[in-house]
Amino acid sequence: MRKVAVLGIGQTKIAEHWEFSIRELAGEAVFRALEEASQPPIDGLFVGNMLSPLVEHQSSLGPLIADWIGLRHGEAVKVEAACASGAAAFRSALMAVASGQMEIAVAVGVEKMTDQHPRDVTFGLATAADADYELDQGVSFVGLNAMIMQRYLHTFGWQSSDLAAFSINAHQNALHNPYARLHMAITREDYERSHMVAAPIRLLDASPIGDGAAAVVLAPADRLPPGNRVLVTGSGAATDTIAVHSRRDPLFLQAAWRSARQAYQQAGRQPEDIDFFELHDAFSIMAALSLEAAGFAERGQGPRLALEGDIRPEGRIPICTRGGLKARGHPVGATGMYQIVEVVQQLRGECGPTQVPAARVGMAQNIGGSGATILTHILERD
Amino acid sequence: MRKVAVLGIGQTKIAEHWEFSIRELAGEAVFRALEEASQPPIDGLFVGNMLSPLVEHQSSLGPLIADWIGLRHGEAVKVEAACASGAAAFRSALMAVASGQMEIAVAVGVEKMTDQHPRDVTFGLATAADADYELDQGVSFVGLNAMIMQRYLHTFGWQSSDLAAFSINAHQNALHNPYARLHMAITREDYERSHMVAAPIRLLDASPIGDGAAAVVLAPADRLPPGNRVLVTGSGAATDTIAVHSRRDPLFLQAAWRSARQAYQQAGRQPEDIDFFELHDAFSIMAALSLEAAGFAERGQGPRLALEGDIRPEGRIPICTRGGLKARGHPVGATGMYQIVEVVQQLRGECGPTQVPAARVGMAQNIGGSGATILTHILERD
Repeated sequence: MRKVAVLGIGQTKIAEHWEFSIRELAGEAVFRALEEASQPPIDGLFVGNMLSPLVEHQSSLGPLIADWIGLRHGEAVKVEAACASGAAAFRSALMAVASGQMEIAVAVGVEKMTDQHPRDVTFGLATAADADYELDQGVSFVGLNAMIMQRYLHTFGWQSSDLAAFSINAHQNALHNPYARLHMAITREDYERSHMVAAPIRLLDASPIGDGAAAVVLAPADRLPPGNRVLVTGSGAATDTIAVHSRRDPLFLQAAWRSARQAYQQAGRQPEDIDFFELHDAFSIMAALSLEAAGFAERGQGPRLALEGDIRPEGRIPICTRGGLKARGHPVGATGMYQIVEVVQQLRGECGPTQVPAARVGMAQNIGGSGATILTHILERD
Repeated sequence: MRKVAVLGIGQTKIAEHWEFSIRELAGEAVFRALEEASQPPIDGLFVGNMLSPLVEHQSSLGPLIADWIGLRHGEAVKVEAACASGAAAFRSALMAVASGQMEIAVAVGVEKMTDQHPRDVTFGLATAADADYELDQGVSFVGLNAMIMQRYLHTFGWQSSDLAAFSINAHQNALHNPYARLHMAITREDYERSHMVAAPIRLLDASPIGDGAAAVVLAPADRLPPGNRVLVTGSGAATDTIAVHSRRDPLFLQAAWRSARQAYQQAGRQPEDIDFFELHDAFSIMAALSLEAAGFAERGQGPRLALEGDIRPEGRIPICTRGGLKARGHPVGATGMYQIVEVVQQLRGECGPTQVPAARVGMAQNIGGSGATILTHILERD
């Protein structure tokens, strides 16, 4: 396998993009990435998306977007892994280039969620759970996360408001990200006043949905001179049972641990080497579990990193430096690609007030379902 | 890229499998394939499926099926390209093994279509078309194919009943396939009496839907001794505009021609070398167009091969030797995998009365949408 570099990135603001169709939205991100990459010829397109058959009544996003971006007749396919679809598409593109199958591959994550009534979106998101044993029993996706959070608080002795520090950090960082969905600082009091969505999850534990797209152009590293490249040095993918109740320990993200271990080994890195970590805080409890499974905190001690300020841009292990899912927003099938784009921005030093000092090694972790599919990627500036 | 061999195949009968959930159905096919392959350790799973979010309310088939087949924690992902999802998953698995990323990869195509009211399935299938410019204007998937067939008859001077020979051959061959959906011979008179679905498409031009799953286990060729292996020697993937009206020539399947050319080049083969061809006869018109684009007939002359008996098992270019989509059945996201499994059966000489004599080189072509995504694979016995 050869080394792979990022030639260009692109993203749209996460918002209610009623003015854009899904192909136009994806196109915006891809066109920006291709412009940065100086318009190379594209060998293939990998699209990450979860909900378009349900929300947009559109399957077959591969040829739809390939045609729109000017790749008529080229290879194009959609990859789906619920909310991890973005990183799954990225990994497919990465493997195509690393293996020599393609010279230039484009990965784009795109999701439109605001064209339908919210109850249809809630239903769509629940298809990430086990249809037979979770969804059909009436549990929603936030309900599953609420049960995990409740058990976590009980087992490790935290108060729900101890998790507020994750949301406060994410909202603070998003203030400086023009692509973020929410631009508003929040306090612990705001958190405590926010209404209960599914106990113990409050509104300010939960990420907002939205429409958005993010894209990356990948090529063999030797196309660029060494010294100022962004390389993908580690990639891991793992799964767990789709139903939470089937797991031996629902408070440990096995697939996060396994995919992180693969990525660390491939990159020759360990947690101490990671300068910042774009994790999947769909709900604040997931930020804690992700930090623990990836080796940054002991079991049950994730919230301590947030409470002690270690997750801030200048802290020991900065997370959600552009706002995370909580404030940048969570257009589900696009989220994994937003994380990759944000890691590249940090490695390039483009993040202004939330720039991580001397960032050279960044990690992204994207979660599908309640931990059923998890992918971890490490990128480095050489 | 290293050579890849088929270690095992498995399939279920195509039927109304109300007794099986989607994970159980996929499991049936995978378990049979793994048994044939002597239960090797699996590195990754690639699932081809189109409709499960809409029909089964289940996204995230990767971890769902991985867990069910005993691959808990392994890598697993779903690939979607409408009715070409099966071949797209196969190509992903093939590339994973060919590139050295994995030693043993499993590809499974699975679809459950009979759990919902047929109108919901008709709607689901229409999401393979362009949602903005075709579906939302009221055209169904059969309607699009009807327009293509009407134009074809007009341009090349055929009668619709001239295409009946494709359906007659498919039904005849399916009589000897225990996995086929339909076991009934038909005549030209049956065809002419069959009711009109969307003029000029009659019921006996159209493939039946159904529930089914088909799977293949892939490994590096050097795991088996030469002499009696089935190797994948060519793989091609291409796209076209998703909307039929955007094509310069709606009567030529550009993506079929391009993907076939890639597969021929990779395998060092040309049409004359192909002993049989499992093509995508979702509607009889597609059989004609596929034969023409893949180089077996001049433009507009596909029906002649059927009328002159060249497509029969003992003919010049046998097609649909196990019944094709028309009579074996068309569980959409699984179809591409059924084609691969059937090619392997022919190369092994397991097809009884419809065995192609001395079959050494077989080809499969899987079509997504009305020609938007097309993949072509060549397999050979060495």
